[in-house]
Amino acid sequence: MPATLAEKILQQHCDEQITGPGQIVRCRLSLVLANDITAPLAIKSFKKMGAAGVFDKDKVTIVADHFTPNKDIESAEQVKVCREFAKEMGITHYFEGGNVGVEHALLPELGLVGPGDVVIGADSHTCTYGGLGAFATGMGSTDVAAGMALGETWFKVPPTIQVILTGTLRQWVGAKDLMLALIGTIGVSGALYKALEFVGPLASALSVEGRMTMSNMAIEAGGKVGLFAADDKTLAYAAAHGRKGDKAIAADAGAAYERVVTIDATGMEPQIACPHLPDNVKPVSAVAGLKVDQAVIGSCTNGRIEDLREAAAILKGRKVSKDVRTIILPATPNIWRQALAEGLIETFMDAGCIVGPATCGPCLGGHMGILAGGERAIATTNRNFKGRMGSLESEVYLSGPAAAAAAAVAGEIIDPAKV
Amino acid sequence: MPATLAEKILQQHCDEQITGPGQIVRCRLSLVLANDITAPLAIKSFKKMGAAGVFDKDKVTIVADHFTPNKDIESAEQVKVCREFAKEMGITHYFEGGNVGVEHALLPELGLVGPGDVVIGADSHTCTYGGLGAFATGMGSTDVAAGMALGETWFKVPPTIQVILTGTLRQWVGAKDLMLALIGTIGVSGALYKALEFVGPLASALSVEGRMTMSNMAIEAGGKVGLFAADDKTLAYAAAHGRKGDKAIAADAGAAYERVVTIDATGMEPQIACPHLPDNVKPVSAVAGLKVDQAVIGSCTNGRIEDLREAAAILKGRKVSKDVRTIILPATPNIWRQALAEGLIETFMDAGCIVGPATCGPCLGGHMGILAGGERAIATTNRNFKGRMGSLESEVYLSGPAAAAAAAVAGEIIDPAKV
Repeated sequence: MPATLAEKILQQHCDEQITGPGQIVRCRLSLVLANDITAPLAIKSFKKMGAAGVFDKDKVTIVADHFTPNKDIESAEQVKVCREFAKEMGITHYFEGGNVGVEHALLPELGLVGPGDVVIGADSHTCTYGGLGAFATGMGSTDVAAGMALGETWFKVPPTIQVILTGTLRQWVGAKDLMLALIGTIGVSGALYKALEFVGPLASALSVEGRMTMSNMAIEAGGKVGLFAADDKTLAYAAAHGRKGDKAIAADAGAAYERVVTIDATGMEPQIACPHLPDNVKPVSAVAGLKVDQAVIGSCTNGRIEDLREAAAILKGRKVSKDVRTIILPATPNIWRQALAEGLIETFMDAGCIVGPATCGPCLGGHMGILAGGERAIATTNRNFKGRMGSLESEVYLSGPAAAAAAAVAGEIIDPAKV
Repeated sequence: MPATLAEKILQQHCDEQITGPGQIVRCRLSLVLANDITAPLAIKSFKKMGAAGVFDKDKVTIVADHFTPNKDIESAEQVKVCREFAKEMGITHYFEGGNVGVEHALLPELGLVGPGDVVIGADSHTCTYGGLGAFATGMGSTDVAAGMALGETWFKVPPTIQVILTGTLRQWVGAKDLMLALIGTIGVSGALYKALEFVGPLASALSVEGRMTMSNMAIEAGGKVGLFAADDKTLAYAAAHGRKGDKAIAADAGAAYERVVTIDATGMEPQIACPHLPDNVKPVSAVAGLKVDQAVIGSCTNGRIEDLREAAAILKGRKVSKDVRTIILPATPNIWRQALAEGLIETFMDAGCIVGPATCGPCLGGHMGILAGGERAIATTNRNFKGRMGSLESEVYLSGPAAAAAAAVAGEIIDPAKV
C-alpha cells in the first residue's frame, strides 16, 4: 500500500507493519530532547519511574535556551537541575552557556537530527525537524522522560494533509509567509493530530532553512508533524552538518491523503498573523499603518542566517525608529558568528538595534524584550496568543523577517517593498 | 582658605561661601538622573509634590538600563512609566531601546556630565563622574524628584580623605585593583559621607576611563564622592565627547584633609574582593584555584572599551572553560560598536563567550546571568553582597577584567599572568 511520508518514516523505526492512520505503533527514537523549562519536569518523572539511566547518552539532549543567560534565580536553579542530571547520566550533548543556541536551530546545525529520524522533544516546536524529513514532534515532559529511559515511544499514526506549495514568491515574501497563509487557510486546529506534508514546486525550491521555518509552525495549525521530503538538498545540508549515511525519503506515489490544500504564492503579499491567534492572518496591506513599540527578529522560527540576511537587507544603511525597540537574537552561536563575519551584526548595530545572545528570549514571554500593557510588537516568532510576549494587554503580530525589519524602520507595520 | 576639590566644585554651584566640612549648602545642579528602577519612584514623588515640570528639559535624564531589554512585565511597565513621563515633560535625554547604555558609561560618553559639574542621580554609582572631576553622588528617589523639579539640592559639605596613588602597575593590574586595594584598606564604611580625592603620580597616569572605574566604587567605601582633578586629559576627554568650555579644576595646595591614605601599586597583584563585602579584598594568589561557574565582564565599573580590550587580550586565541558561563556586556552601544570594529566581539565569540546588549544585567541580580544556589561568579562589577547576583547561597568575587577573563579560561580564579 502506498504510504505517506509520515507513515514511511515511522515504519523505518517500527517493527509492526503500519497500515494507516489511527494505528498505535511503538517506534524507536533517534533523539529525545528537552530544555531548561521542560527538562526539570522530565527529570522529576524520570526519577519517579526509577529509571537507571538514559537509553543512549548520545541520543538524549538538553538545551538550556529558554530563560538563559539565566533571567532569575528560579531559572538558574532549573538550569542547575539540567546540568546535574546531564552530568549524572553522562549525557554527551548538554548545552549551556556559550554553547547554547535555540534548540531547534542548534540541533540541525550540529547534525543531531536529520532525514528519516524520529524525534520527540519536550517542546512544542520540535516539529521543526520535519523540514529535514524527520518525524519530529513535541510531547509532554512525562512522555519525554519515558523516551529518555526507553528510547522508544508510541504514536498514533496520523492522517496526512498534503499541502501543495506553488507559484512564485515576490521579493520579501518567503517561507514564513507561506506558512502563515496556510495556517490562515486551515485554522489553528486545521491539522489537529494530523501530519502536514509539504510538496510541490515551491516546496522543492525552498531552502532547507525555509522548510524548517514552515515545519516549525506545523503545531500552530495543531499538526503532529510538518514534513518535507528529504531530497538532494536535504542530504547536502545533512552532510554539511556532519551527518553520514542519510538517505532520501519521500511519500509513495498514490498515498492516501485526508485533504489536499494548495497554497499559491503568486501575488502573495507578506502575511501578518494578527492578535491573538496564528490563524488570524491578513496581508500586510490590511494592517499597514499600525504603530509598533517593538520588533523581534529571532526564535526557532526565524533566527537563522537566511532570516538575519533578509532583515539586514532592509536595515542596511537605515535607522530603526527611535520608538521601536528592535531586538535581534541570532538563534545559535554559529549563526551569530556567521552574521558577524558577513557584517550583519554591524548593520544591526548601526541601525540602532539591540543584538542579544542566542536565546528564546521574548518569544514565549521569557525575558529580553517583554511587553507592557498597551504595547504592540511585530515578531518573527511563532505564537501571538494573548499575553504571549508579556502583558495580557499587549499585542503580537507575527511576520517574516523582512516585514519585521521594515516595521522597525517605519515605526509601523508596512510592506517591506515600500520602505 | 585653601579648599579641597569637593569644596571647590560645590562652591562653583553655590551662592554661599563654603567654609568647610559639615556646612549645609544649596547647590545648583548640572544634571539629575534616574533609571528604570528608580525613575518610577522619583516620578511618583515628583507628581505628589505637584511640580509643574522639570527645571530644565536638557538637564534631567532617564536611562532605562537596568532590567532592559525588559526582563518581565513589571520591568516593561516601569519603562513605560519612564517613557510617558519623559514625553510629558519633553525630556531631551531619554534613553530606551537601541540607545540605551549603562547610565554611568553612557552619560560621560555623550558629554552629558563633565568637569566641575554637580550631579545627583537616583543610583548609588552616580559617583562615577568623579573621574571627570564632577561632584556626583547618588540620592534617594525623593531627593532626586525634588532635584528634577528645582534644579538644586542641599549637601552637607563632606570632609575629604586624600588618596595618594603611587608606584608602578604591573601587567594585568589596573584601576579596579587600585580601588579594591583602597576599599580593602579603609573598609566599606571608611569614607562614610566623606569625599575621596585621588591624587599622586598614578592618579595622573590613569586614563579617564580608569579614573571613572575608581570613582565608581567610592560608594563601596561609603564615600559621598570619589574625585579626580580635571586635568588636560580630562579636558581632552570632555572635548572629544562634545563638551565645550570646560575648565581644569583641582584642590588648592594646602587644603585640609581628614586623613591621607597611600596606595602603592608597586608589587601589587590583581586584587579580588571576596564574599560578601567589597572590602574583603585579597591578592589573587590567596584565592587562586577556586572554581567559578560564571564570569561577568561589564557594568558601570568595568564595561568600557579599555576593559573589553583587556579581557580580549586574555581571551584572544583561547577558549573559555566549558564550565564557565562567560558573559560580556559592553556598557554602551558605542562601546559595543567600537569593540566590534576592533575585532573584540569576534574574539569573545570565538572564545565561547556570550555577548549581550548594553545592560546592567546580572550586576544587581537583574537578569542576563543570575546565579543558582552554590554557584560562584567572578565579576568586574562593583558589589558582592550576599545574594547580589542571585541566590543567597551564591558567591560573587569582584575583580578587574583581566582576572575575570583569566578565570573564565582556567575555570578557576587565577593570576592572569599565569594563564
